[in-house]
Amino acid sequence: MRYSKKDLKIRVDYNNMMASVIGRSQGITETELDSISSEISKAYNFVAAGSGIGMMGWTKLATGQDDVVEDILATAKQIRRNFEYFVVLGIGGSALGPIAAFKAINHLHYNDLKKSKRKGPKFYVEDNVDPERMAALLDVIEPEKTMFNVVTKSGSTSETMTQYLIINDILVKALGDKARDHIIATTSKSKGNLIKIAAREGYKTFYIPDGVGGRFSELCPVGLLPAAVLGIDIKGLLQGAAFMQEQCESAFVKRNPALMTAALMYLAMTKHGKNISVMMPYADGLQFVADWYAQLWAESLGKNKTLSGHACNVGQTPVKALGVTDQHSQVQLYTEGPFDKVITFLAVDKYRCEVAIPEGCKDIPDVNFLSGHTMNELIKAEQLATEYAVTKAGKLNYTINLPELNEFTLGQLLMLFMMETAYCGALLGIDAFNQPGVEEGKNATYALLGRRGYEDKKAELDNAPKKQNRFII
Amino acid sequence: MRYSKKDLKIRVDYNNMMASVIGRSQGITETELDSISSEISKAYNFVAAGSGIGMMGWTKLATGQDDVVEDILATAKQIRRNFEYFVVLGIGGSALGPIAAFKAINHLHYNDLKKSKRKGPKFYVEDNVDPERMAALLDVIEPEKTMFNVVTKSGSTSETMTQYLIINDILVKALGDKARDHIIATTSKSKGNLIKIAAREGYKTFYIPDGVGGRFSELCPVGLLPAAVLGIDIKGLLQGAAFMQEQCESAFVKRNPALMTAALMYLAMTKHGKNISVMMPYADGLQFVADWYAQLWAESLGKNKTLSGHACNVGQTPVKALGVTDQHSQVQLYTEGPFDKVITFLAVDKYRCEVAIPEGCKDIPDVNFLSGHTMNELIKAEQLATEYAVTKAGKLNYTINLPELNEFTLGQLLMLFMMETAYCGALLGIDAFNQPGVEEGKNATYALLGRRGYEDKKAELDNAPKKQNRFII
Repeated sequence: MRYSKKDLKIRVDYNNMMASVIGRSQGITETELDSISSEISKAYNFVAAGSGIGMMGWTKLATGQDDVVEDILATAKQIRRNFEYFVVLGIGGSALGPIAAFKAINHLHYNDLKKSKRKGPKFYVEDNVDPERMAALLDVIEPEKTMFNVVTKSGSTSETMTQYLIINDILVKALGDKARDHIIATTSKSKGNLIKIAAREGYKTFYIPDGVGGRFSELCPVGLLPAAVLGIDIKGLLQGAAFMQEQCESAFVKRNPALMTAALMYLAMTKHGKNISVMMPYADGLQFVADWYAQLWAESLGKNKTLSGHACNVGQTPVKALGVTDQHSQVQLYTEGPFDKVITFLAVDKYRCEVAIPEGCKDIPDVNFLSGHTMNELIKAEQLATEYAVTKAGKLNYTINLPELNEFTLGQLLMLFMMETAYCGALLGIDAFNQPGVEEGKNATYALLGRRGYEDKKAELDNAPKKQNRFII
Repeated sequence: MRYSKKDLKIRVDYNNMMASVIGRSQGITETELDSISSEISKAYNFVAAGSGIGMMGWTKLATGQDDVVEDILATAKQIRRNFEYFVVLGIGGSALGPIAAFKAINHLHYNDLKKSKRKGPKFYVEDNVDPERMAALLDVIEPEKTMFNVVTKSGSTSETMTQYLIINDILVKALGDKARDHIIATTSKSKGNLIKIAAREGYKTFYIPDGVGGRFSELCPVGLLPAAVLGIDIKGLLQGAAFMQEQCESAFVKRNPALMTAALMYLAMTKHGKNISVMMPYADGLQFVADWYAQLWAESLGKNKTLSGHACNVGQTPVKALGVTDQHSQVQLYTEGPFDKVITFLAVDKYRCEVAIPEGCKDIPDVNFLSGHTMNELIKAEQLATEYAVTKAGKLNYTINLPELNEFTLGQLLMLFMMETAYCGALLGIDAFNQPGVEEGKNATYALLGRRGYEDKKAELDNAPKKQNRFII
């Protein structure tokens, strides 16, 4: 499909971050922005210089995957033809991107549609190891009609490999040698366990490039294969991402939306005490983009050490909200509570359908005023009204406007956030691409499960202070 | 069903909030707790004295609804017999409680089950006005086989009344006079628009007591009717809530779990700078309890005025997480990021099924160590490991243990949080039962839609500072 760059460019409106709009007591002044211009330039240069190198391989995904895309499209076509269910076994970045794209582009009750109305198989993403969840999945799929996509770069993710062992056992018992036709591995080409297993078993395999970490992997086969199976235009997604990258080539902060939002968020968190980042889409389709962003932002920026090795404890806590739903849950706090957050509204100019509000309560003016409007007008009015209310209450916020929600605008949005994260990491002077803080929990899990080699950690756990009964009610 | 109080009492373990366990730099000392003992007593007395009065009518729900419960059970039985779909039209407290109970007690893929395996009709809760969402719903239900439960206390909730107008129009066009048999109203008995409409149309109606606000309404017909339709044991839910209330009768903070957690959270937010409250259940079934809690905590405590009229900006921002899933998204931040949050883990001792992890990778030790364990052991090990990791990193946390997840423990849990919220509001000296901060947005919405009587607000909006194009990229 062809997308118009002119009509479909997403817009970042940061008026309500600025002191000249929201007031000096909370807003960021232009002088303040100017005062960090050399840091902004350094961050821009750091990211530009690192592009495509090391763990910034994800910057090369939007335009460098022609062969991979063709393979994915051909594979997806076969899957759509031959399978009734498509199940992703993955967690973290292997799950959040596929879920976000699925919800954004596909029907909001996709799995409930009759087969004839769906573009592909029923879709499930298994990103937990709750035994009730696995049992529930097995109640609603038929393994012999299911393609499982096992996604883990290292092949040592306990959750995903646990799911793999369970599913593989079921498939082999039911199908024997044909089990291999029901598993696709998405993993590192060069190292890890899953690539060894895939080679041994003869699984169809897609590769996660070395320089692409989990939370930056939606535009590699991790995200593209499920998307293609679901009938999502993955070329459009990549074109949108590439279009955003073009805009981020500008070293001029007022022309580079990711650099500007990074600079504003950096000032908000380091100088204005905003340790919370709320993302509030006004579209059900964008709800899980907020989930995907929550991982990207938290895991990239939540660090206790700078690149030069100094101790710190930085990072903003992401909060997922949904407009208008959470107006009836969170907006009381956002307006009257502490001045501790930045709210990012995601807005859609034109929804993919229009629903009129008919008459039915002519005798009740409190209700009747709604008739004659559309739901589209109502949700838009509520979005603008909420923006107005939080701005009036002095709470920093900005809005990202999508002309429509489609593959091209979604691609722009995802790339905007990835670039913003890279810039913000550079401004904070931390490594945005590692996650050393998850090792402690992983090792403790291994120790508790009695894995060989973790005897010392087990001893450490055994020697930890015992729980005191007087602190249990 | 009968539930054992001895075996099914939920336990609050707050060891990792205390300085003697987690260390003095972050933890709360017993001296500190003692130093606010008179405030704690005052809060206890305030809540005890207010019980059942004004907006604390919800404290009378657990034991005072025998007739209502019988009516609900009889109605639910008819609905299960005669309808294929049950749709709640409601938002905020009218939606979050029903969703939480549904996910906690019913099959995790309930709507995907074959009809013969479900206890009731397919279930949808419509808590947004995205036109795409309404269109999607209409694609997957058959209105003539659907019972709609319209839930709004005031009958003036724009979102719910919009949905009502749309659905009623469809029903009347399809069914004429019989449309009335497809709508149940849950609303105030004494005032509002929906009760007038219900009387005019002859809808079956359940009442929301005057002293029960939206976020405290799960144990009145708002929550009980959908639950009963789904086959949830609502008597067990109420018994669990009553059991928790018994425990909260103690004026002794070390015996009253809600009073203790309220006191700890109050100290954490006012003296220790913890402006974020993360709720992280280790069970898919409890995921939406975190959503329900997010409204309860945010809307009750996020206030800009004390009861005595002094200006303030208090409130903790709730964050929903899911174990183990969000270990791969948020735990990096929780361990290495700022010391700005309290994490509440929700743990389940015994899941409702067991799933073994079979062999399949004998040649790969990194994977093979999992075989022979169960998913149950894995998720429990990960929960304890994460608790250990965040505690080691000095991040305040406490754990609520449910022996099992069922109606009786869920009832205890919901009541624990409602009582904790009431106590915490009293400690903060604010009104936990109003939500004045949502008015600004509501009025601006009315103005934008051209509702009569809001001309002044419209003029105010028109005169607001215009967006500056230079702050849009």
